[in-house]
Amino acid sequence: MPSSFDIECLEQCITLAVDSVASGGGPFAALLVRDGQVIARAWNRVVPDCDPTAHAEVQALRQGGAVLDTPHLDGCTLYASCEPCPMCLAAALWGRVSRIVYAAPHDEAIRAGFADTHIARQLYGQSGPVALQEGLLEPCPVPGLSAPFDAWLARSDRIPY
Amino acid sequence: MPSSFDIECLEQCITLAVDSVASGGGPFAALLVRDGQVIARAWNRVVPDCDPTAHAEVQALRQGGAVLDTPHLDGCTLYASCEPCPMCLAAALWGRVSRIVYAAPHDEAIRAGFADTHIARQLYGQSGPVALQEGLLEPCPVPGLSAPFDAWLARSDRIPY
Repeated sequence: MPSSFDIECLEQCITLAVDSVASGGGPFAALLVRDGQVIARAWNRVVPDCDPTAHAEVQALRQGGAVLDTPHLDGCTLYASCEPCPMCLAAALWGRVSRIVYAAPHDEAIRAGFADTHIARQLYGQSGPVALQEGLLEPCPVPGLSAPFDAWLARSDRIPY
Repeated sequence: MPSSFDIECLEQCITLAVDSVASGGGPFAALLVRDGQVIARAWNRVVPDCDPTAHAEVQALRQGGAVLDTPHLDGCTLYASCEPCPMCLAAALWGRVSRIVYAAPHDEAIRAGFADTHIARQLYGQSGPVALQEGLLEPCPVPGLSAPFDAWLARSDRIPY
């Protein structure tokens, strides 16, 4: 059950994701939090950094590991403005995060032209993971979750990927 | 059908993976190749870099994007010393690589104590991807494929992850 702190973190993700679009990044952002403290704030840098792996969640896990000086992020919660793609979900499992909370469903990413579901179907055989551990991944559809995607679609110079 | 060039690239991966273990990295390495030219050489840096996403394939895709100045790696082949985990496979799909060739089956990673299959089962519901595009992923079990894992298991100071 999402708390008011969860909602606040997701609202921060959505604001960061809108800002990301304004600065040339993708419409996604993520926070890594431990013990109520924000350890990492990140957004999608695929196109500006020419890095197909620079999704917001991957960036947050990378930064979080550097800050905490370990690749094992047990006890951390990963907040994401959108439902994590298979790469980000697997990255979070490797990082051993304790919980993942997201705002927008992957349908929003599809609406904005991203390949999340195409990739999920190749790997999972369906749109979502098949047997994820109970309670790891929580949807929390806060108001405003569509804003980053609307901002993205409004940019005529966007580079799809 | 693997070519002699494929075999040569995988032998380079295996040598790099053994070297990686000697320098404190994980027992995995990868090359990214386009038009017969090696664009990126990478190895697993999860523990030394405190980065849960620093698998060899992810590192190779990151480097490859930077070298080619695009996140779209169409026409590239990703060579890996071991069967890619779900994170690396999804990363390669986001990167749009044309082909992935690997040496060791994931059983070798499991023998060495890595969580590949545990993560795959949560996401795929089985040990391998469910509906991957035909011909994308090719096993090529070259001689010596176990050497990186043997080197890893021989290190008493290894940090499992």
